[in-house]
Amino acid sequence: MEWLTADEQTAWRSFLQATTLLEDYLDRQLQRDAGMPHMYYALLSTLSETPARRMRMTELAERVKITRSRLSHAVARLEGDGWLRRESCPSDRRGQIVVLTDTGYDKLVQTAPGHVEAVRAAIFDRLSAEQTAQLAEISQVIADGLHQPAGADVPWLR
Amino acid sequence: MEWLTADEQTAWRSFLQATTLLEDYLDRQLQRDAGMPHMYYALLSTLSETPARRMRMTELAERVKITRSRLSHAVARLEGDGWLRRESCPSDRRGQIVVLTDTGYDKLVQTAPGHVEAVRAAIFDRLSAEQTAQLAEISQVIADGLHQPAGADVPWLR
Repeated sequence: MEWLTADEQTAWRSFLQATTLLEDYLDRQLQRDAGMPHMYYALLSTLSETPARRMRMTELAERVKITRSRLSHAVARLEGDGWLRRESCPSDRRGQIVVLTDTGYDKLVQTAPGHVEAVRAAIFDRLSAEQTAQLAEISQVIADGLHQPAGADVPWLR
Repeated sequence: MEWLTADEQTAWRSFLQATTLLEDYLDRQLQRDAGMPHMYYALLSTLSETPARRMRMTELAERVKITRSRLSHAVARLEGDGWLRRESCPSDRRGQIVVLTDTGYDKLVQTAPGHVEAVRAAIFDRLSAEQTAQLAEISQVIADGLHQPAGADVPWLR
């Protein structure tokens, strides 16, 4: 058993504070300006970038890194808002497809500028280009580690 | 309105994936091994580092960067487990003090090695010393920004 070094502890505490504050800030911004939490925005945004704005539920859960039950709950609410709809998958009777509706797309288009501005103000306006590249690399290393080993306890396979 | 550059988008996506996966991973680890989510662990750990293992509720909320109502909820549960207890503040009748009990301290001592190992495996075993220093600096810049301006909409003042 090896404790964290002083440098690691400093990094860990600052990271926890930054991520806790950031999550709160972005959730508040999106709740206030668009009536949805950050994770719902991520779902709309991810769907908007696919061909025909649709995706299998299982793939969407993997992209957004959440459990299928959390996704189902979110999709039900977003369906109630008229921003998404579910379709059955023609090639797989157990699969379900989630589709971004035109209303949902309009909502995203309307919401995106304010959200991007918030992300920019909180992060990228404050980091140098070098720090942005460092953040990308560090985040990739951490994310890759949590995908391994194959068969890891990743949320979307639960 | 300025969109994110390609480099900023890459960094932002990787960062979101890393933090979503990490939160899930650490919550699962602590739920499995200690029956508590990550945020509860942070409360016990923060209290353990203070003189006499006690702190005012308002200060604890600020340290852990959460709202007072979220803290009250967590403290009620941790009090039920016998790990914390509340005392009224002698110098301020409206203030409340939260105290880490001996049982709570034992629980923390028992839980810490496995949790530190998980943090190490997910982050610090994978980063170079240079990356650890970069992560500390980047996190500090982001956290500082979200504390400003004075009177910012920080969670613990809500």
